[in-house]
Amino acid sequence: MALPHGYPGEACSLARALEVVGERWTLLILRDSFYGVRRFGDFAAHLNVPRAVLSERLKSLTSAGVLTRVLGGAGRDEYQLTDKGAALWPAVRTLLAWGDEYYAPRGPRRLFTHAADDAAVDGSGRCTACGATVAPEDTVVVPGPGLPGADPGDDPVTSALIQPHPLMRPIRG
Amino acid sequence: MALPHGYPGEACSLARALEVVGERWTLLILRDSFYGVRRFGDFAAHLNVPRAVLSERLKSLTSAGVLTRVLGGAGRDEYQLTDKGAALWPAVRTLLAWGDEYYAPRGPRRLFTHAADDAAVDGSGRCTACGATVAPEDTVVVPGPGLPGADPGDDPVTSALIQPHPLMRPIRG
Repeated sequence: MALPHGYPGEACSLARALEVVGERWTLLILRDSFYGVRRFGDFAAHLNVPRAVLSERLKSLTSAGVLTRVLGGAGRDEYQLTDKGAALWPAVRTLLAWGDEYYAPRGPRRLFTHAADDAAVDGSGRCTACGATVAPEDTVVVPGPGLPGADPGDDPVTSALIQPHPLMRPIRG
Repeated sequence: MALPHGYPGEACSLARALEVVGERWTLLILRDSFYGVRRFGDFAAHLNVPRAVLSERLKSLTSAGVLTRVLGGAGRDEYQLTDKGAALWPAVRTLLAWGDEYYAPRGPRRLFTHAADDAAVDGSGRCTACGATVAPEDTVVVPGPGLPGADPGDDPVTSALIQPHPLMRPIRG
């Protein structure tokens, strides 16, 4: 994805990063990828994003090397985070934490814990028990106080996340 | 800023955060705010953003309480980060770090150090010497290996950042 001309003062790494992820749907798709969503239909159901937009964003993230398309068990295409994509976890986590601080009057909908010791991960990404910086694959997403009660009409992603769920583990089988 | 209807599965904190900052120019404006840019003309010169877009984004960030408009020394309006805005530093820093890792073949244009001991701040926001999580007001931005040589035709922001510069300190007087 080429940068447009005329970016003298800001052709920096942040500008380039934002070429790839600086857009609302893109970051929500990435968050869902960390939650273990891999199928087009599951992203679509959970995010309620127009299918054309979702298709375009998945293509763009794949061509940027953030997601990779693989053939899933059911013979369908699935989208998985690459190492480059997984490296975006601190950015997704810190934006989530900021949103929780300022836009979650009932508290966070989801909390993160360290799989090794079940302790909470703090705002800077460290385990509050052992002090380690917790990689996404060692992180578990658990329901928080701001999560509304489960509704049987909910989509498969919301249903899967009613239970503690390790990040990056597929929500299906 | 109200969320549109029909966001059942993702009306979470990240979605709300991205309502405010989930757009490329917005995050670049915030980065410049951390660098000490406060005047409309300096943002415009550094980012090369269309003035109408810049005006709209500054208004939106101000109404979200991320920036506040104050009367500057020269009798001009200036835009300063609020506490809520300063709390976005981990998000800006982690996106920058990701961009540096994947899109800066010559190395980062800018590095961050801890004002207290001049040691580098690492990817998780900790001082590599004392181990503290470094707040933006205790952080200094210094030129990195990827920064091209100074050009006398450069804008006032680029010129100010040729020297080490404490974050959030105005680039003018």
